[in-house]
Amino acid sequence: MPADDAIRDARPRAAATLPSRAEDFPRWYQEVVARAELAENGPVRGTMVIRPWGYEIWERLQAAIDERIKAAGAHNAYFPLFIPEALMRLEAEHVEGFDPELWVVTHGGGRKLEEPVVVRPTSETVINHFFAKWVQSHRDLPLIVNQWCNVVRWELRPRLFLRTTEFLWQEGHTAHVDEADARAFALRILTDVYRDAMEEVAAVPVLIGHKTARERFAGAVRTWTCEAMMGDGKALQMGTSHELGVNFSKPFGIQYADAAGSLRYVWQTSWGASTRLIGALIMAHGDDFGLRLPPALAPVEVVVLCVREDDQVHRVASQLAEDLRRAGRRVHLDDRTDTGFGRRSVDWELKGVPVRVEVGPRDLARGEVTLVTRHTRTKEPVALGAVAGAVERICRGAAAELRAEALAFREGRTASVTSLAEVAEPGATGFARIPWRAVGEHGELELAAGALSVRCLQRADGGLAAPGEPDDALVAVVGRSY
Amino acid sequence: MPADDAIRDARPRAAATLPSRAEDFPRWYQEVVARAELAENGPVRGTMVIRPWGYEIWERLQAAIDERIKAAGAHNAYFPLFIPEALMRLEAEHVEGFDPELWVVTHGGGRKLEEPVVVRPTSETVINHFFAKWVQSHRDLPLIVNQWCNVVRWELRPRLFLRTTEFLWQEGHTAHVDEADARAFALRILTDVYRDAMEEVAAVPVLIGHKTARERFAGAVRTWTCEAMMGDGKALQMGTSHELGVNFSKPFGIQYADAAGSLRYVWQTSWGASTRLIGALIMAHGDDFGLRLPPALAPVEVVVLCVREDDQVHRVASQLAEDLRRAGRRVHLDDRTDTGFGRRSVDWELKGVPVRVEVGPRDLARGEVTLVTRHTRTKEPVALGAVAGAVERICRGAAAELRAEALAFREGRTASVTSLAEVAEPGATGFARIPWRAVGEHGELELAAGALSVRCLQRADGGLAAPGEPDDALVAVVGRSY
Repeated sequence: MPADDAIRDARPRAAATLPSRAEDFPRWYQEVVARAELAENGPVRGTMVIRPWGYEIWERLQAAIDERIKAAGAHNAYFPLFIPEALMRLEAEHVEGFDPELWVVTHGGGRKLEEPVVVRPTSETVINHFFAKWVQSHRDLPLIVNQWCNVVRWELRPRLFLRTTEFLWQEGHTAHVDEADARAFALRILTDVYRDAMEEVAAVPVLIGHKTARERFAGAVRTWTCEAMMGDGKALQMGTSHELGVNFSKPFGIQYADAAGSLRYVWQTSWGASTRLIGALIMAHGDDFGLRLPPALAPVEVVVLCVREDDQVHRVASQLAEDLRRAGRRVHLDDRTDTGFGRRSVDWELKGVPVRVEVGPRDLARGEVTLVTRHTRTKEPVALGAVAGAVERICRGAAAELRAEALAFREGRTASVTSLAEVAEPGATGFARIPWRAVGEHGELELAAGALSVRCLQRADGGLAAPGEPDDALVAVVGRSY
Repeated sequence: MPADDAIRDARPRAAATLPSRAEDFPRWYQEVVARAELAENGPVRGTMVIRPWGYEIWERLQAAIDERIKAAGAHNAYFPLFIPEALMRLEAEHVEGFDPELWVVTHGGGRKLEEPVVVRPTSETVINHFFAKWVQSHRDLPLIVNQWCNVVRWELRPRLFLRTTEFLWQEGHTAHVDEADARAFALRILTDVYRDAMEEVAAVPVLIGHKTARERFAGAVRTWTCEAMMGDGKALQMGTSHELGVNFSKPFGIQYADAAGSLRYVWQTSWGASTRLIGALIMAHGDDFGLRLPPALAPVEVVVLCVREDDQVHRVASQLAEDLRRAGRRVHLDDRTDTGFGRRSVDWELKGVPVRVEVGPRDLARGEVTLVTRHTRTKEPVALGAVAGAVERICRGAAAELRAEALAFREGRTASVTSLAEVAEPGATGFARIPWRAVGEHGELELAAGALSVRCLQRADGGLAAPGEPDDALVAVVGRSY
């Protein structure tokens, strides 16, 4: 057995320490988050520290979403964290939905405040307060703003990334001349921003559709959603785009003068996606050895590891790292040979780095290094001169392969049924597709009793309901949700 | 008089509506912020809405600073908004400094909290709580993290961008093996990140030095600062880099095992720059006609204006805009000919767009357009074929010219004096440079009575104090401050 391999086989097996997903998915998730140094709990219950490795993934997701939001015509802005309680209470359904989740500041500058202020759980109210000033004429429309910020909501059962007291997100808010323009924009965000970023960048396939009345956003007339299946068969809501109708423009008085000079209420949308997407990445792609990252989101795309202390090893590894950097990849050279190779190797695997290039003296004697593809866990000896090409091939193909794998997994765990009684079985391990007329509002209550819910409504072909199309003609996707 | 010029001369003069800086600088500032649509007051006292034009300037500043911070070796992360009161109280000087400024949450989820939480005014305490867990060995050092976030401080006299209850900033926090390494890093941030971004990107010349004990950050052993002169001769603190010594590592218990296995306290730094820099841009470069933006920070570098409705005008303007975009510039085509040309022209001037290309039928008949350089307000007829070259020339030269102008202004308003009695006169309109031994702590109190303060201490040649160099050998820069 060549020496390099002996060192490799001596490495601690991740499987020995990370619980398997099949055995205990929640604990597996928790361990991956902790051991890949993605995040940890903050000192105030439910809050979260996003550590550098997790945050850099977020920065990349953020850039992908931001680019698409701007292409849709939005401008970024920033609105205050603190919202006067009175403003928060202007839209009845909205306040009813958010009231139990509010965090309230009562003291400032050493004194009791005259009016308590709410720490924003979402910004419809404060933003619409300004829209009322900014919108005067039809020429001011559409008005499309987005903000990247933190929001805070009381959480009974917090879970890192998935449900935290404080999270980071973007929230877009728009005003349009009429219902058709608002709907078209809400759908554009759903498909061109969210679905596209999730599928093309995060490599997570999503179902799109709209929420039932029970599940929609407090204050919306229709909530469009992207839903993905996680590795345990449960559903995660990845991003939502709401049609708000005139629910906010009426209480906030957002009116414009049309071309004829008549005053009309604007039609609005709002839409958001959050750090929850990091949880989705972990759970959609992770395996029993840790995280698997699509290269576009990986803080490091290629790690070049020196297997052991050796001059030639170090020289070749440095050169390979430099060459790969020049080829435009994000590369890390791991030459910490005072730490065991096995431990370092397991760590990089856990952190989901797409490609490892292992440089050891025995391989080098044959003019080779060992390439390890994270998402397939395949190892291959590669001649030194062929490393750059092989890395490119892996990096270019990884996202499509991860996406195809996730899609096949979802399809394999989705069953079509016709009656409510048949939902429980497929619903226990994945999704059930069932005609909405076989569920209805009463059926939703029954599903909820079994910890199931309608994730979205869509056409039988997976398409979105057309304007005016009754829900009765649609299919409900039912599953357990995060 | 050609028709185009007649239209131009008919435009409302900005000077007629914007107060002049000489007349009322504070009102001029307020008006520029409002009318260039940079920001406005939020509904909770002292909070701020950053509007798209202001926010895009911030995004560009942020990118410039972030790039430099990362080049210095920092990784971005995110720490919670909410800090338990008890944690906030661990470092005595720190809490004493911040106590009067705190906003406190007492209720969450509909109930009174068991322990009140503070909305972060800065994050030393919560970050060091985690550093204590993360730092074990000398191999974990230096630990360099940065976060972009919002912070909240009670403000008695809020002013948009300059002093707001909530503002956006980055705060970096580091841990080092010893004092020398911490100091070197604090200085690297001061010069390679802050001074470089401010001078090279924002085109605002800064003085660097350290604060007197009276002016330094609560909890620091030394505060390094960048100070700039605004258009009214007052000083603005642009960014600070603090040496924290072991002031936080002791109460927070941040220790590492050195190579010999002995436990030692880490030496720390923290450093921040905020949305206040937008205020600096306005006040350092603005003139009586509004904002003047260095091209690198301008949301739009070139606006191509159709002087009036005309097919050929529109065709040529569109083509020019397209050509300039292809050359890599951020270009806006203003073809809203239903709004008067004069009004639009004044608006773009107010918003500080570096170059205007005015396309009118008379100029076109001569194969020309009119180019207006914002920072000099010069107009020149330019042949169509020469527009791209002329725009490049203006855009490449603008920052250096703005910087030189600001530097000349500062030098013109700085006087060297030798006694405290001589400070008042130059201090009333700019800076006085005076040997620190002629001021001293008692002198600082006297200065404060006259609304003056020591902005920084530096060597006579403008350099930074060397390690161990006594303050007595240094020069104090005295001025009125924002």
